[in-house]
Amino acid sequence: MVFKKITLIGTSSESFDKAADDAIERAEATLDNLKWVEVEELGVEIAGVEGREYQAEVVVAFELEE
Amino acid sequence: MVFKKITLIGTSSESFDKAADDAIERAEATLDNLKWVEVEELGVEIAGVEGREYQAEVVVAFELEE
Amino acid sequence: MVFKKITLIGTSSESFDKAADDAIERAEATLDNLKWVEVEELGVEIAGVEGREYQAEVVVAFELEE
Amino acid sequence: MVFKKITLIGTSSESFDKAADDAIERAEATLDNLKWVEVEELGVEIAGVEGREYQAEVVVAFELEE
Amino acid sequence: MVFKKITLIGTSSESFDKAADDAIERAEATLDNLKWVEVEELGVEIAGVEGREYQAEVVVAFELEE
Amino acid sequence: MVFKKITLIGTSSESFDKAADDAIERAEATLDNLKWVEVEELGVEIAGVEGREYQAEVVVAFELEE
Amino acid sequence: MVFKKITLIGTSSESFDKAADDAIERAEATLDNLKWVEVEELGVEIAGVEGREYQAEVVVAFELEE
Amino acid sequence: MVFKKITLIGTSSESFDKAADDAIERAEATLDNLKWVEVEELGVEIAGVEGREYQAEVVVAFELEE
Amino acid sequence: MVFKKITLIGTSSESFDKAADDAIERAEATLDNLKWVEVEELGVEIAGVEGREYQAEVVVAFELEE
Amino acid sequence: MVFKKITLIGTSSESFDKAADDAIERAEATLDNLKWVEVEELGVEIAGVEGREYQAEVVVAFELEE
Amino acid sequence: MVFKKITLIGTSSESFDKAADDAIERAEATLDNLKWVEVEELGVEIAGVEGREYQAEVVVAFELEE
Amino acid sequence: MVFKKITLIGTSSESFDKAADDAIERAEATLDNLKWVEVEELGVEIAGVEGREYQAEVVVAFELEE
Repeated sequence: MVFKKITLIGTSSESFDKAADDAIERAEATLDNLKWVEVEELGVEIAGVEGREYQAEVVVAFELEE
Repeated sequence: MVFKKITLIGTSSESFDKAADDAIERAEATLDNLKWVEVEELGVEIAGVEGREYQAEVVVAFELEE
Repeated sequence: MVFKKITLIGTSSESFDKAADDAIERAEATLDNLKWVEVEELGVEIAGVEGREYQAEVVVAFELEE
Repeated sequence: MVFKKITLIGTSSESFDKAADDAIERAEATLDNLKWVEVEELGVEIAGVEGREYQAEVVVAFELEE
Repeated sequence: MVFKKITLIGTSSESFDKAADDAIERAEATLDNLKWVEVEELGVEIAGVEGREYQAEVVVAFELEE
Repeated sequence: MVFKKITLIGTSSESFDKAADDAIERAEATLDNLKWVEVEELGVEIAGVEGREYQAEVVVAFELEE
Repeated sequence: MVFKKITLIGTSSESFDKAADDAIERAEATLDNLKWVEVEELGVEIAGVEGREYQAEVVVAFELEE
Repeated sequence: MVFKKITLIGTSSESFDKAADDAIERAEATLDNLKWVEVEELGVEIAGVEGREYQAEVVVAFELEE
Repeated sequence: MVFKKITLIGTSSESFDKAADDAIERAEATLDNLKWVEVEELGVEIAGVEGREYQAEVVVAFELEE
Repeated sequence: MVFKKITLIGTSSESFDKAADDAIERAEATLDNLKWVEVEELGVEIAGVEGREYQAEVVVAFELEE
Repeated sequence: MVFKKITLIGTSSESFDKAADDAIERAEATLDNLKWVEVEELGVEIAGVEGREYQAEVVVAFELEE
Repeated sequence: MVFKKITLIGTSSESFDKAADDAIERAEATLDNLKWVEVEELGVEIAGVEGREYQAEVVVAFELEE
């Protein structure tokens, strides 16, 4: 059994929780056998967006097919 | 005056805030003189749980009785 | 074009998101050309406050005027 | 000449060495021009497995084709 | 559901694997609901021991009873 | 032979050395087989104390009884 | 909007700047919507190359298509 | 004698060296008694700029007047 | 309530404690509502000073006026 | 009593344990009063070697003669 | 002009300051052109010594002769 | 096969690349079997030098003779 980890950054105009969910939902839509997620960084983009863009950089771990 | 620190991981099906609260409430139920809490890690467990389990690893500092 | 970074800690009786917003709002009130924000640390103060005080230490980056 | 790095977690019921080998063998089976491997983390999963599952998170570097 | 983490250092005259196992076995003998283990540091004591003493500092996570 | 590590914060109105000693003395009063101490953080509390309160966060390692 | 990050190592016989550019050019040739690059490590390979091979490990962030 | 440190990010369309120089020149124009500079991070902005914008985050130390 | 953090380096010809005190006294002379101090680095300058110059880099946190 | 630390990288075609032993044996052959060893990094070289070359970077501490 | 850095651990039965001085004095006795010292770690050895042995791990930088 | 690592700081009045080269050239003049170099820190000395002195702290790895 081998797992792979990739790094995604989700965004939300509302909260850090939703930014993390955004990345997780993207991962769930394209990867099978998602196992766990680690939050690496939280940030807020202010310039060049309307209002604030909450960002959550997450590492997503999933099991590779044999 | 001496403080001690312990590490707990709280969980919630809803949000990181509630996962941290979960750990803090557990600490408040069993320790006197709780002083402050530091968030060490945020994560999400996906495999082996229903939906998502938000997790917050926190370090809890409390004052030891003399 | 040169940016400067400063470190603020926002507080909230409700959540980490609001604590971060608190620091961002303070920065927006006193600095022009705010660009982005990095969350450095999350914590909760318990002693010496009513209930819980959620804290978010953030680094705020803004563009210096030429 | 450009290298790429990916992160894998190998597992073994026997030892950390074998867990690292597990990830390396997976990489060798799917990637050409493997160059080197860095061990990032070692751990042991206990719940939800029979006995112990040794885990080695490794970063694998390989040369991209031009 | 709340987990707690504690830090142990296992020792072995033979290998790092056995040093980690030593700490895990001690944890299993005294704690219920052991979940996972993270290796923090590996070292070797040479002075004051016969031969070499392999050491593995591990963090052990277990579920607290409700 | 298995060691355990715990984290204490000693305090002193005089110096960092005395703050570390404060934590070590507390550990010596309640734990047998104390082996070594690692200083993790030094700080000074100013608000809510008279004068300054020097603080030393230390990790204390002791041997567990078999 | 979700971003992905990947890790590349560019090389150059001339300078660290050119090594970073090498990795960025590779990323630009194969990825759309490249956003920013973070330098993770700089190094120089000496054995097994003619002269010196400057290396720049960079993390490249790009926006995923919806 | 007390020093203060501030964090600046210089930018350049040409190289990391020039990005660092950009921040240093800004510091020299507004601060007396500049002592030394530590490079914290190197990066490249690609979206929203023409070509590439090399960035150097530096910490600048200067002596405070008594 | 918002706090700000700044970084100072105090110096002393005698000890690390006095070097930290030097930075704290400077902060107390110019800032209101000083709250706490974190020691970031300790060092000793030898070249270009008489004897030894003990240095303590500290982060000083204070409350901003509303 | 003063200790000195040096950094060695041992290699083995068999395992990480043997790679660490390789470095320790080299240290024992050339240094007196070896005290302890800290493992800094584990890795595997694949290109340019036959099979795999396990590598262990270790810091070796020894007591200096007075 | 090229500097070299080495790592020493000084010891004292009295204080961290004296432990650092111990390492600096050793460096001054054997190296020319000592420039500066960075404190890496502070610790206290308790087992196998009389009383307490304060330890300061320091990195010593000195200029190499041309 | 055992490698050793040492830490050097090269300097240049022109650029970080040349500062790194300065340290590498020094290493090449005094050590055989130089293998690779890792850049640890970049900085600029301003006080006490003419103009600016770019500095590159590098770790140099070389193979020990058997």
